[in-house]
Amino acid sequence: MNARLPVGVIGLGRMGQIYSRHLAQHISQSRLVYLADVIQERAQRLADELGVESWSTDYRDLLADKAVQAVFVTSPTSTHRDVVIAAAQAGKAIFCEKPIALTLEDTDMILDAIDQTGVTFQVGFMRRFDAGYVKAKEQIEAGVIGNPVTFKSIGRDPFCPDLEYARPSVSGGLILDMAIHDFDLGRWLMADEVRRVYTEGGTLAFPQLNTVGDIDNAVVNMLFENGALGNVEVSRNALYGYDIRTEILGTQGGLNIGYYRQTPLLVMTREGIGHDMVPYIIQRFGDAYLAQSRDFIERVLSDREPVVSGHDARAALEIGLAATRSYKEARPVALSEYRR
Amino acid sequence: MNARLPVGVIGLGRMGQIYSRHLAQHISQSRLVYLADVIQERAQRLADELGVESWSTDYRDLLADKAVQAVFVTSPTSTHRDVVIAAAQAGKAIFCEKPIALTLEDTDMILDAIDQTGVTFQVGFMRRFDAGYVKAKEQIEAGVIGNPVTFKSIGRDPFCPDLEYARPSVSGGLILDMAIHDFDLGRWLMADEVRRVYTEGGTLAFPQLNTVGDIDNAVVNMLFENGALGNVEVSRNALYGYDIRTEILGTQGGLNIGYYRQTPLLVMTREGIGHDMVPYIIQRFGDAYLAQSRDFIERVLSDREPVVSGHDARAALEIGLAATRSYKEARPVALSEYRR
Amino acid sequence: MNARLPVGVIGLGRMGQIYSRHLAQHISQSRLVYLADVIQERAQRLADELGVESWSTDYRDLLADKAVQAVFVTSPTSTHRDVVIAAAQAGKAIFCEKPIALTLEDTDMILDAIDQTGVTFQVGFMRRFDAGYVKAKEQIEAGVIGNPVTFKSIGRDPFCPDLEYARPSVSGGLILDMAIHDFDLGRWLMADEVRRVYTEGGTLAFPQLNTVGDIDNAVVNMLFENGALGNVEVSRNALYGYDIRTEILGTQGGLNIGYYRQTPLLVMTREGIGHDMVPYIIQRFGDAYLAQSRDFIERVLSDREPVVSGHDARAALEIGLAATRSYKEARPVALSEYRR
Amino acid sequence: MNARLPVGVIGLGRMGQIYSRHLAQHISQSRLVYLADVIQERAQRLADELGVESWSTDYRDLLADKAVQAVFVTSPTSTHRDVVIAAAQAGKAIFCEKPIALTLEDTDMILDAIDQTGVTFQVGFMRRFDAGYVKAKEQIEAGVIGNPVTFKSIGRDPFCPDLEYARPSVSGGLILDMAIHDFDLGRWLMADEVRRVYTEGGTLAFPQLNTVGDIDNAVVNMLFENGALGNVEVSRNALYGYDIRTEILGTQGGLNIGYYRQTPLLVMTREGIGHDMVPYIIQRFGDAYLAQSRDFIERVLSDREPVVSGHDARAALEIGLAATRSYKEARPVALSEYRR
Repeated sequence: MNARLPVGVIGLGRMGQIYSRHLAQHISQSRLVYLADVIQERAQRLADELGVESWSTDYRDLLADKAVQAVFVTSPTSTHRDVVIAAAQAGKAIFCEKPIALTLEDTDMILDAIDQTGVTFQVGFMRRFDAGYVKAKEQIEAGVIGNPVTFKSIGRDPFCPDLEYARPSVSGGLILDMAIHDFDLGRWLMADEVRRVYTEGGTLAFPQLNTVGDIDNAVVNMLFENGALGNVEVSRNALYGYDIRTEILGTQGGLNIGYYRQTPLLVMTREGIGHDMVPYIIQRFGDAYLAQSRDFIERVLSDREPVVSGHDARAALEIGLAATRSYKEARPVALSEYRR
Repeated sequence: MNARLPVGVIGLGRMGQIYSRHLAQHISQSRLVYLADVIQERAQRLADELGVESWSTDYRDLLADKAVQAVFVTSPTSTHRDVVIAAAQAGKAIFCEKPIALTLEDTDMILDAIDQTGVTFQVGFMRRFDAGYVKAKEQIEAGVIGNPVTFKSIGRDPFCPDLEYARPSVSGGLILDMAIHDFDLGRWLMADEVRRVYTEGGTLAFPQLNTVGDIDNAVVNMLFENGALGNVEVSRNALYGYDIRTEILGTQGGLNIGYYRQTPLLVMTREGIGHDMVPYIIQRFGDAYLAQSRDFIERVLSDREPVVSGHDARAALEIGLAATRSYKEARPVALSEYRR
Repeated sequence: MNARLPVGVIGLGRMGQIYSRHLAQHISQSRLVYLADVIQERAQRLADELGVESWSTDYRDLLADKAVQAVFVTSPTSTHRDVVIAAAQAGKAIFCEKPIALTLEDTDMILDAIDQTGVTFQVGFMRRFDAGYVKAKEQIEAGVIGNPVTFKSIGRDPFCPDLEYARPSVSGGLILDMAIHDFDLGRWLMADEVRRVYTEGGTLAFPQLNTVGDIDNAVVNMLFENGALGNVEVSRNALYGYDIRTEILGTQGGLNIGYYRQTPLLVMTREGIGHDMVPYIIQRFGDAYLAQSRDFIERVLSDREPVVSGHDARAALEIGLAATRSYKEARPVALSEYRR
Repeated sequence: MNARLPVGVIGLGRMGQIYSRHLAQHISQSRLVYLADVIQERAQRLADELGVESWSTDYRDLLADKAVQAVFVTSPTSTHRDVVIAAAQAGKAIFCEKPIALTLEDTDMILDAIDQTGVTFQVGFMRRFDAGYVKAKEQIEAGVIGNPVTFKSIGRDPFCPDLEYARPSVSGGLILDMAIHDFDLGRWLMADEVRRVYTEGGTLAFPQLNTVGDIDNAVVNMLFENGALGNVEVSRNALYGYDIRTEILGTQGGLNIGYYRQTPLLVMTREGIGHDMVPYIIQRFGDAYLAQSRDFIERVLSDREPVVSGHDARAALEIGLAATRSYKEARPVALSEYRR
């Protein structure tokens, strides 16, 4: 009845599998037609499970398939530049998981390729599709809290990542890896750019991170262009669960986004009153990931601009790089040092 | 790879559509192959949308199709008896939406047909698949609250139903329509049968219900066989939202199941601190419906007993009939009056 | 500067001591001038501590003191009749802790004495002075929830009382001892009288209560005169803490009164998210007790009617007696059996 | 019976009146015997109301009274130096409302006088006596959250102060006026000193503050000596209420201190689910103020060290001065610049 967009997924790790399932089973306007992963077994097995016609261990095969109109790039960050540029040159609409890249050089090569080819391009800041954040944005725009003056955001992971992943050359380091979501939220919710950041950080819970050059906790102060303030905290040691919260204080009120509880059950014993906690990202943002993919598909089908642009991805990366440098150099860092 | 169970859905109203989507798109072990509804357009359109091979306006066509191994019966309650018996005789595994029937006579005819044919049969008490209720059951069985002594349950709908539906000959009336879920929860969570009920009720918010012989509020006291106590409240006028909560008090602690908030956003203004509310059943129990269907499919495939039996359906109906009679006769009613 | 009302306190058990401290130290318009208790040491020590001029082991000494203008009667319930009648004949304004008495006969003798002497008389239903209940009453009267249609109240104590106290001849039994607060709230918040009650109850947690003829759990269904519904649950085995909550559902919304947390601290560990619980009555209603005494003093000083009358006390007792009988006789009991 | 400590109060503004009432009416071990305020009517009226024997418009009269053994200094901050030094020289035990002074010079003159006279001296950081903060401290010391690694604190006032008060020469400016509580909490709860601070701030809600040189919002990043991190946010424009919250993240868990609700009532309407908010400081910390005074009195009577020392007051002031300078100079400021 309705047209279905034929899509391929490149990179079938944890996130790639989630996207693949959504595209194959939960989004009526997409048809998952091609899977690619360097590990043959991973590609083949998922293709079987989801009934996907084609798979390959070489993403260039996928890009060469004229039937594929859009691709989801969920391969490791270090591959994003090459994959995205090739996909753009192949004329595909592109959804790229965050972060777009770990350097401005790679990012700009990507953005140039997007500009030159004119393909649709979106980066995966899925929190913009979470019901809480969406409604917060609406309330701010409706003037419910007056002018927003302070942006606070907390992103806490419940465990230390694999050391190979934590290596800054792979993940970008704690701040780029985790706070980049909060930096994007800050720009979006405050409708403003960041002028300056200052970071304190350290390795306070997992000393093994020192061996690969990463830290586990940081607090980043932000000054926005229009004078508004911000603070972002990221941590890898919220052993109680996955704790993502954002507050916006305005001149007329405030908004708090986030929640603790996973299961709607309160247990009352002599030890106290308690409940469980959201364990990890998919329990918290599973619906947002789905809404994000659905929105991308619909925009490609109707030839509308995606809501998160390459420019947004670069801007969040700039803040992440500046915040990382601020920590290393123990000084406030102006974003003007990074602007294109 | 894995076997997929070919299923059909009979009755494509609101619930039938939800089940159909789940079976077609969200459950990898089922394959939706046949749809039936007396309204041709409804059957045809949904079949198109979900890519279902066959559809008919006559459920007997569906039952006659040998490829269909299981059926979901989501047609109006008044049709359950005939449809379920025919499905049993056709050898299908049967999932029947609650309530199984509005009379014990119809129920027993169904149960006899199930017994004689030996088909798998489950009734749709989806709350048993909700994460909160599941964990509550686990905690009780683990002894966290000692012996359960009081069961309290609240079921409040946010609006007055269509008067045609509210008619007791169609819906069974407020208590059978709504409290039957709570009666099932009571039996399940307390691991006990009900001995006696006493009901107060009335038409307090929507006088138009008087014209069809229904009421809009009731409180039902329960005495369990082992001496434990219970109270169920149902209401049609929770205009603030869909409010489903259950409390179990035990000798060592208590459990409260349920929640108010739909969106993880707290709004703080001079008017106070507030958030939104769960609007209706699908926002509250969508995941439970999906888990229920998945569990049924898996049990049929692996030839295991379903978790909610025909006996459970009859037992909840008995309590609903007794509670309704108690309201009408203003006296405590013993369940022994209803036992088979 | 301002006049201070000279007051005496009769009965210096737990509640008597609380009232005495409030009257001596926290209420600027009262002056505590006389204490009486059958235990000499108790009277003497508290008089010393609070700097009270006079004390006696015989309450008649206190009543004979012309300087004393008002008395707080906090002696055991069994003594209320004689003490209150003597106080009325002595012309004192009287505050009597709940329950006024355990029988309608004693109650009516008290009310007759009050009528004949014309003294001010108030009974201690302190929940009417709790900030949550006060605001709930205001919201109902302001029409925020439309017409109230269902009244639900939970009163749970965290431990089994002393067996001597639990004896129905002393405490009145579970329902009179605990649910009388909820019955008063029901009449007050619903602005209506109760027509009929039906009770289920039992001894489910503390079998030792059977030896003195008391039970530990009950649920009481209520039908109000105007057709509204109610349910009251009382329990002695909320081992997790003191749990007092009330809900009012109306035709346009609902109100929930009560809270769980004692200390404003949330603890988040791998075991979950939790906090402590209100341990007992003084932590929950300490402010309400103080506000109640302050209101009584101010009304006596300004010659205004107290907000809780002898009629209110009798009405709550009627419901308690009917609910107790309903449990014993397993039948709905009409309040008309008890009306004067 | 027990000894009562004779105390005087110097300065009868808002806080002086609160302390006076507590000392006169709520603390059995103190006797309020002398009041001093430059406004005669204020001293005389409060003395009448509380039955205080002596009052004066000159605090030196109070200090000259040998009967007065302890004084509460609640006069304007600019007077603290002279009043406290004179009180120390008069041999009184001294409780001084925060902040001790606005400069290190004044502070050191005070601390020198305390050292030389050996009198007991405590500064009013009442949050250390709040049940939530007390229990948080206990939990940290008990190891519940492992090693604390991040300290976050929010202090938001619900309105713009009087401009005369906001003047930095009077209040010390936003950071000294408000965040000094959070700085003290940080040192206390983290059991560590601050090494470095970095502040962003601005006048974002109340432009009139620019006319007196104050700001209305600030975020302060902190690095502790042992490497732990911190962030303090203060704001004058939480128009929804008085919002004081603190979080401690540790290597094994977290603690959140604070709450929103004033009245235990949830209102549920079609507009959503909501409640009211703590309006201001006395509703939030009234019990803490009382506990603080009681603790001070008991320590003086039993000749024990107070829990908040002059050193603590200086240390919090140092952080406040450094944080203020950091805002002005847009650079991280090391606390070593301020150490004595």
